[in-house]
Amino acid sequence: MNIASIIGLISGIIIMIFGIAFQQDSMSFDFTMVMNFIDIPSVLITFGGSFTTLITMEPNMKSYLGKLASFRLVLHTPAVNEIETIRSIIGLSNVARKEGLLALEETANGIEDEFLKKGILLIVDGTDPELVRSIMETELNCIEGRHKEVIGFWDKLSAMGPAWGMIGTLIGLINMLKDLNDPSTIGPNMAVALVTTFYGSLLANWVCIPVVNKLKINNSSEIQMKEVIVEGLLSIQAGENPRVIEEKLKSFLNPANRIEFDAAEGGEVDG
Amino acid sequence: MNIASIIGLISGIIIMIFGIAFQQDSMSFDFTMVMNFIDIPSVLITFGGSFTTLITMEPNMKSYLGKLASFRLVLHTPAVNEIETIRSIIGLSNVARKEGLLALEETANGIEDEFLKKGILLIVDGTDPELVRSIMETELNCIEGRHKEVIGFWDKLSAMGPAWGMIGTLIGLINMLKDLNDPSTIGPNMAVALVTTFYGSLLANWVCIPVVNKLKINNSSEIQMKEVIVEGLLSIQAGENPRVIEEKLKSFLNPANRIEFDAAEGGEVDG
Amino acid sequence: MNIASIIGLISGIIIMIFGIAFQQDSMSFDFTMVMNFIDIPSVLITFGGSFTTLITMEPNMKSYLGKLASFRLVLHTPAVNEIETIRSIIGLSNVARKEGLLALEETANGIEDEFLKKGILLIVDGTDPELVRSIMETELNCIEGRHKEVIGFWDKLSAMGPAWGMIGTLIGLINMLKDLNDPSTIGPNMAVALVTTFYGSLLANWVCIPVVNKLKINNSSEIQMKEVIVEGLLSIQAGENPRVIEEKLKSFLNPANRIEFDAAEGGEVDG
Amino acid sequence: MNIASIIGLISGIIIMIFGIAFQQDSMSFDFTMVMNFIDIPSVLITFGGSFTTLITMEPNMKSYLGKLASFRLVLHTPAVNEIETIRSIIGLSNVARKEGLLALEETANGIEDEFLKKGILLIVDGTDPELVRSIMETELNCIEGRHKEVIGFWDKLSAMGPAWGMIGTLIGLINMLKDLNDPSTIGPNMAVALVTTFYGSLLANWVCIPVVNKLKINNSSEIQMKEVIVEGLLSIQAGENPRVIEEKLKSFLNPANRIEFDAAEGGEVDG
Amino acid sequence: MNIASIIGLISGIIIMIFGIAFQQDSMSFDFTMVMNFIDIPSVLITFGGSFTTLITMEPNMKSYLGKLASFRLVLHTPAVNEIETIRSIIGLSNVARKEGLLALEETANGIEDEFLKKGILLIVDGTDPELVRSIMETELNCIEGRHKEVIGFWDKLSAMGPAWGMIGTLIGLINMLKDLNDPSTIGPNMAVALVTTFYGSLLANWVCIPVVNKLKINNSSEIQMKEVIVEGLLSIQAGENPRVIEEKLKSFLNPANRIEFDAAEGGEVDG
Repeated sequence: MNIASIIGLISGIIIMIFGIAFQQDSMSFDFTMVMNFIDIPSVLITFGGSFTTLITMEPNMKSYLGKLASFRLVLHTPAVNEIETIRSIIGLSNVARKEGLLALEETANGIEDEFLKKGILLIVDGTDPELVRSIMETELNCIEGRHKEVIGFWDKLSAMGPAWGMIGTLIGLINMLKDLNDPSTIGPNMAVALVTTFYGSLLANWVCIPVVNKLKINNSSEIQMKEVIVEGLLSIQAGENPRVIEEKLKSFLNPANRIEFDAAEGGEVDG
Repeated sequence: MNIASIIGLISGIIIMIFGIAFQQDSMSFDFTMVMNFIDIPSVLITFGGSFTTLITMEPNMKSYLGKLASFRLVLHTPAVNEIETIRSIIGLSNVARKEGLLALEETANGIEDEFLKKGILLIVDGTDPELVRSIMETELNCIEGRHKEVIGFWDKLSAMGPAWGMIGTLIGLINMLKDLNDPSTIGPNMAVALVTTFYGSLLANWVCIPVVNKLKINNSSEIQMKEVIVEGLLSIQAGENPRVIEEKLKSFLNPANRIEFDAAEGGEVDG
Repeated sequence: MNIASIIGLISGIIIMIFGIAFQQDSMSFDFTMVMNFIDIPSVLITFGGSFTTLITMEPNMKSYLGKLASFRLVLHTPAVNEIETIRSIIGLSNVARKEGLLALEETANGIEDEFLKKGILLIVDGTDPELVRSIMETELNCIEGRHKEVIGFWDKLSAMGPAWGMIGTLIGLINMLKDLNDPSTIGPNMAVALVTTFYGSLLANWVCIPVVNKLKINNSSEIQMKEVIVEGLLSIQAGENPRVIEEKLKSFLNPANRIEFDAAEGGEVDG
Repeated sequence: MNIASIIGLISGIIIMIFGIAFQQDSMSFDFTMVMNFIDIPSVLITFGGSFTTLITMEPNMKSYLGKLASFRLVLHTPAVNEIETIRSIIGLSNVARKEGLLALEETANGIEDEFLKKGILLIVDGTDPELVRSIMETELNCIEGRHKEVIGFWDKLSAMGPAWGMIGTLIGLINMLKDLNDPSTIGPNMAVALVTTFYGSLLANWVCIPVVNKLKINNSSEIQMKEVIVEGLLSIQAGENPRVIEEKLKSFLNPANRIEFDAAEGGEVDG
Repeated sequence: MNIASIIGLISGIIIMIFGIAFQQDSMSFDFTMVMNFIDIPSVLITFGGSFTTLITMEPNMKSYLGKLASFRLVLHTPAVNEIETIRSIIGLSNVARKEGLLALEETANGIEDEFLKKGILLIVDGTDPELVRSIMETELNCIEGRHKEVIGFWDKLSAMGPAWGMIGTLIGLINMLKDLNDPSTIGPNMAVALVTTFYGSLLANWVCIPVVNKLKINNSSEIQMKEVIVEGLLSIQAGENPRVIEEKLKSFLNPANRIEFDAAEGGEVDG
């Protein structure tokens, strides 16, 4: 569970509801005010318009539903552990140095990370270093390409929400202006017209833009981890000294993680 | 037929019409409301302005009509089959390894993909590998250039729609404000003025932006397939091992397709 | 004459005038409505503001007037003929192969394209290939740089139009709001205030944005033709086979032009 | 203390308060007007919405709080002293030339800059120059990456402020329009609705955008200093002449600093 | 004096004042209307807000004032003379060819351009060509970097103007709406509220955006001239033929300047 994202999403809506319900005069809350913001045709136009437009852009319904489902990625913490990964690469480099590259095959079986595993097997197979780099980087680019498609989905949705919200407001205004017989209905009708813009803004700013940014951050840490893996594997294949490899990979860590890494490593060495 | 795009386009407009017709008071639908959104001079100004502006940008009428006709690309599924293409390249590499590069000529006759065919013929002709790469990449860039021109057409139309919609609304407002004698006509006149903005927003958000994004996705999968072909052909020409070629090309597949590829291939090997 | 652009510009304004004049009630046209959109101070502020701002940005008045005059480029079809150019380069390569590079000097005299001519003379002078490429590419970059300055002029004008339109509307509103004594003048005064925004939008969307896009398309086809020339000349200098040069240059053509090229060439070979 | 930033932030708000309080009629100030701009639910919606949305985007609360705390960077002057750094690198190059690279180890202990220190130790360890460059540049990229994350935080906040301000205004308008019984409350209610947009604009333009730009400038001078260090260390390792190194590094200085540098150096040489 | 910029700035404001003062009814000018656009608190909020925000972004007050002062660059014509520069480089190449590189030292003393002078001295000192290029390019990048900082200053001011204009309008509207007792003051109060938006738009569109574009054009011609110098100096150092150097450098000229150059040169050769 990604606590920060869940806190952010939930507290955002709760604070807004309190803001809606707050009565300045009596310094009290009137939660029936929330009913002002619920309107069925507005839901139809704003969410209907936004989500069907996104269907039009997708190659097929399966791909559309898959991208919608990517929302759950925001609620999970990605299993990226930089320190752990660097340590296991250094472990591999020690194995390779002492027992040869072939000894890595056995170690590879215990590794969960598919990308690291594939890289080790390529090395064990004696693949040409240039080819290892090329295959690993093609894979990296394709992973990033897929991430960017998902990020693009939420990005387009964040543009479609306000656009269809405005279309809904235009529809409400046009309907209202065409028939102004009863002046007492002008206010409420205009309120309803504005509800679609409100929905569209919420869809964009409460959901889509945070999702886009969250996925971008997740993507960039995953890609950086994979670049560390590629760098590390090629160094192992080149038979570089484990100390040099460690120095190389540690420059990817931020200062806090570097201290943690050094501390833990010191302990290990002592142990 | 591209089901998702057709569903997206049709359901979008249907949902909007239901949203327009929905009567909150009586919880019923009044489809005569749709008439509020039909106005001839608004059609003239918004669509007339948007489409004639696009004519101005084109080198000639033929190119303009060709780009308009590209709309049908959205309704068709592009015939990109990654797995099939990779398999046929591996087949070619086996033929080349066993019977020599010249044996590819015969195989090339059975291939429909013009790009792949041209590449094979260049190899069979004994063209220098650097020249093969250069010719194939120039062709790739020119294909992408043509795609981008078409995408740009819809992109510019998606900007022109709202712009001419706003021009139409200004025209409506100015005409209305110049003559305010009969207050009862202010509302309906203003409604009509807003209809052009409504048209412009629909043109952009219901049609053009989805078309742009759809064509971008189509383009990027087609270009990636062609890059796989170039990579594969150059490997064949270099006489690389079919196993290595397979490993190289498989890194372009996403995990789902890779499993499918491996499954099918296993079966083939067994067969 | 570039028919498409002229049709686009003229039909755009005609359609708009019909949209303005159309009377929904009587289903007739009232062209006196066009007078609502003519206002002298609005012309002063919107066009005066936009065009003087552009003067401020230019190094001198001559450069400003030169860029304004570039409008005529939109009305002319650029004399870019891909097929013709490629054919004349292949012709040159045949001459060079049969009679040597020096024989090109005579042929060069008959060539109108200054860029191609300069390239041939450099080759005939025995200039080092690296230097030929460097000189030709510097020239190419400078041509593109000059095109981009002109495109930038219209691009900035397309931003200045709506900006000064809005300034004009603010001026109109402020003047009107300061003196609200006669309520019957509010409507017409507001109409006048909106006319500047209308002018600014027309300047941007009817003139500038189409000009920008037209010039961009012209630029990119001219630059591509010049890149074909550079590629071709260097191949001639390197003494490459005319067949190979043809193959190389043909990959720049789009499929339709390639068929036309092959057809015409077939005829020539037979002839 | 960074005087300019503190002056900018404080004088901005003070000038605005005087602008709010100024009474044109009596040419006096009425500071009770400031109360018009204080509204609790508006604070809840605008700031609550903006800041919780930012929580959603972060990997965890610690990272969120760390980025909020980066605000203090704006109030401090970064300890970047170009002249000092270049002079100490030239000092190092003199030491290295006279006493050998190993003599740098001792000097390194007196250096506070962690980045420069690390580089010296790599050189002293006899690390391969290519590896030194690669490690230093990875570290540089990671530092810049972390800076950009912080800058991105304030950039997103500068977009969220106005977005939630508009959501708040929509909420205020909808609540007001739903209940128009008492016309005398329309004005004040609409005023309150606009307060959220006011808050959002202030958050963006008074705080976030200046912070973003300040941090960008800080980042770019820090990165340039670190590039000077990398360039200098590699020159020292390559055993280049201290005079040449000085010439190289001085080209990074702006004219004013170069004069100051030359003046001081002259003095030193004399001393 | 840069006549075009001064004409642009002055005529822009004059045309606008005539637009403000023009009275459609009487076809006369009423310049007292200009008083509608003068309001002290609006000046405080819009200009105060915009300029103090820019202070916050700067490292110190000196840098802030220096950037403000860069406004004068718009009023001066930069002393960039392409033809002159190319001619003096060709002159240098002739000197170097006839009398050797060392003879350039004397010539360098008569040269005003600091950049060209520095380059010549580096060559005379026998600096390695790679190092000459590296030093000259670092200097070029740093010059461009400083130009971009100044351009960025005016660019940010062009964004801050409208932003603080809108904040001022919100302040005016909120103050007005809170106290609607006297309906006759609504109009004038709203007019005053709009004056800040008017100021902000003028600051951006009349001053800042033209300044930004002017400085960009100045920067790009200065940088191009400096690139010509680097190219020329390296050719001189490489001992290239003055004719070849001339050919190389002439490709940087536009056609008009090339004709002028050739004409003048012909005269010189004859003389």
